Amino acid sequence: MQGQRVSQGSGQPRVVIVGCGFGGLFAARALRRANAEVLVIDRNNYHLFQPLLYQVASAALAPADIAQPIRTILRHQRNARVMLAQVEAVDLAARRVITDAGTIGYDYLVLAPGAVDNYFGHEEWRQFAPGMKAVEEATFIRSRLLRSFESAELEADPAARAAHLTFIIVGAGPTGVELAGAIKELAVDVIPRDYRVVDTRSARVILIEAGARVLPALHPDSSARALRQLRALDVEVRLGAPVSRVLADGVEVAGERLRSYNVIWTAGVRAAPLAASLGVPLGPGGRVMVAADCSVPGHPQAFVIGDAAWLIDPRSGAAVPGVSQGALQMGRYVAGIIDAELRGRDGHRTRGFHYRDWGSMATVGKSRAVVELGRLRFGGLLAWLAWMALHITVLIGFRNRLAVLSSWIYSYVFFRRGSRLITRVAPPPEGP
Amino acid sequence: MQGQRVSQGSGQPRVVIVGCGFGGLFAARALRRANAEVLVIDRNNYHLFQPLLYQVASAALAPADIAQPIRTILRHQRNARVMLAQVEAVDLAARRVITDAGTIGYDYLVLAPGAVDNYFGHEEWRQFAPGMKAVEEATFIRSRLLRSFESAELEADPAARAAHLTFIIVGAGPTGVELAGAIKELAVDVIPRDYRVVDTRSARVILIEAGARVLPALHPDSSARALRQLRALDVEVRLGAPVSRVLADGVEVAGERLRSYNVIWTAGVRAAPLAASLGVPLGPGGRVMVAADCSVPGHPQAFVIGDAAWLIDPRSGAAVPGVSQGALQMGRYVAGIIDAELRGRDGHRTRGFHYRDWGSMATVGKSRAVVELGRLRFGGLLAWLAWMALHITVLIGFRNRLAVLSSWIYSYVFFRRGSRLITRVAPPPEGP
Repeated sequence: MQGQRVSQGSGQPRVVIVGCGFGGLFAARALRRANAEVLVIDRNNYHLFQPLLYQVASAALAPADIAQPIRTILRHQRNARVMLAQVEAVDLAARRVITDAGTIGYDYLVLAPGAVDNYFGHEEWRQFAPGMKAVEEATFIRSRLLRSFESAELEADPAARAAHLTFIIVGAGPTGVELAGAIKELAVDVIPRDYRVVDTRSARVILIEAGARVLPALHPDSSARALRQLRALDVEVRLGAPVSRVLADGVEVAGERLRSYNVIWTAGVRAAPLAASLGVPLGPGGRVMVAADCSVPGHPQAFVIGDAAWLIDPRSGAAVPGVSQGALQMGRYVAGIIDAELRGRDGHRTRGFHYRDWGSMATVGKSRAVVELGRLRFGGLLAWLAWMALHITVLIGFRNRLAVLSSWIYSYVFFRRGSRLITRVAPPPEGP
Repeated sequence: MQGQRVSQGSGQPRVVIVGCGFGGLFAARALRRANAEVLVIDRNNYHLFQPLLYQVASAALAPADIAQPIRTILRHQRNARVMLAQVEAVDLAARRVITDAGTIGYDYLVLAPGAVDNYFGHEEWRQFAPGMKAVEEATFIRSRLLRSFESAELEADPAARAAHLTFIIVGAGPTGVELAGAIKELAVDVIPRDYRVVDTRSARVILIEAGARVLPALHPDSSARALRQLRALDVEVRLGAPVSRVLADGVEVAGERLRSYNVIWTAGVRAAPLAASLGVPLGPGGRVMVAADCSVPGHPQAFVIGDAAWLIDPRSGAAVPGVSQGALQMGRYVAGIIDAELRGRDGHRTRGFHYRDWGSMATVGKSRAVVELGRLRFGGLLAWLAWMALHITVLIGFRNRLAVLSSWIYSYVFFRRGSRLITRVAPPPEGP
């Protein structure tokens, strides 16, 4: 059995962590002194800094700038091991994880598989409106976006040209808002002088939101501020406008047909399919309804954290939001329980998980952002600088920090972007 | 007709340049004051610095570091236009280029389509042993290479593990030599501490060459020096060893079967298929036998330059080599003829093309390289510094120079590489 190969008969208890996003990575790190083998399984060989993935899609950053090999991150953590594999199922009763590279037994399990795009029952929309969760999707979106300007340059028919220059983003959460601003800035500030026929500044960027405001998770003041910033950039924002159809050549929204070959889906996420495979009760978005200690009810050795978990914080009465800091806090919390119990100290579970909101932010473009820190809310240049400082700080790896910072300085000074490549990429996956 | 769309009725003569490698790009730039519309057609939206592509394949650089959008390079050249299209055929009699985006008429034509990998009649080897001409191939090779270390880490069977850790490069020209050194250094200097089970330093890198020496285009002294450097790195070099078969799990060479899942083809090139489609006599490697002025015999308005042209330099009696500097010099030369004739000055053709050898160099690894400048030949640290200085200088774009230089410094100081991503990529193209 391959599980034994991995254990190498160390005889130590084994903690298996599935998924190395923020939740999985911070759980692994918090277990660095644990008396256990910590096995991190991910289908990618890198930890991806998803908050900046939209900058890959908009040609500002290269994928390697926001990705770091998991092995490199954990190279000095002697009790950590890394396995590149796709987890196919979990056998909670037998305490085993079934992967495409073999079956692995565990003493403790931390499931942090993350989220996939939610098409709300319309999976057929995915082929026309890819989401932006993976590197491959971001480079696909980038290539399609850049190719549209090329098509517009060659197109003589004004209506067809206008369609090539129309970019539709469905969903005005942080990713949608940031991507809309980044595409508009690309068209207005970066590429106009590269084209001879077409005026790329005429490109339309349409941000469609079913709800009543942009950035619905933030305070209404921040939403209003971001909306003003988006409109100042000439992004067309349509609120209270649910999309009723997505087609190869556009969308239908509020009875109107908008023509576009670049529809991008940022309308919401649901838990990765692994959550549903557990056979336990699921909450909204297919998330596992975990106990107060993030464990799977009836299986105290198995935890689910991050986007794949559904938990009502008893102090606030609200669900823990599916954001990086939620995953990270849950990762540290369950690592604390595991570490303590491995040392024979029980009782750490009675104090259930409590989410602390460290603040929220989103950027709309150069010198434009909104920030919330507790009751403090502000926008503009200061917010933008705070946004940049935080993202550089949280980004993992010295080289990546340097690369991103220098790319940003370069873009700011020269109005250029460093990754304007149209490449043949694998098409977006068929489904989650 | 789409050709007319592109011309926009400017009434000016039109020079069409097919392919924006070194030859096409330097021809376009040398025509910057020409009284003509200069239309550059390429199937990629970027100029690729192929000499560093092996560093993408070996995880040191990101594709965007060595690629620059053609539009950006030519943005200030007012008479230049760029078209993203695949050229399917040329009608020399009617002076038209047929592309997948329409047909374009020309007054002058510069064909610089470059080369494709030459499997010497064994196209079926391509699927197992991809070459390294395009970004997509380099990222495919990188992903396969990195995945092999992952497979080795999970593999219990020693023979299978050894096969995962065997990397075979067929062809010891500059690309083969540089790639062999880069893979060996990756295995020995960069990643050993990232793995817990496998000792990546035990990886075998085998460089197979049918001829009698490595770097056959250089002086025998340089070949001997590079061979010593390769052996000092523990690269296994097999000379006089033609590969007789390439299979999914290895190669057959000199009656011996070598097991490997990473065979890379750098054994030679031939002209891009566009050359054969012209219906004119072809020389070695399917290259167009051009006249002394690089024109297609019988078609003085059509030139072929670079890797797709076959020309014996009358002064040296040798064929112009298929290297960057040959393409670049030919590009400038034909641009001079075209520019003069557009100004009504004939006679520039009588002085045929003459190739000037500016020197040759190749690097084998950190502090290891060989350089030839006329009769001067040297190796070691000084050669390595010269190699780096030249490549940084010739690289196009300030941002790319900065990115490559800082990546090299980073690698040198920290023994790391910045682009260790395994990504799903489009499989290598079926054929040329």
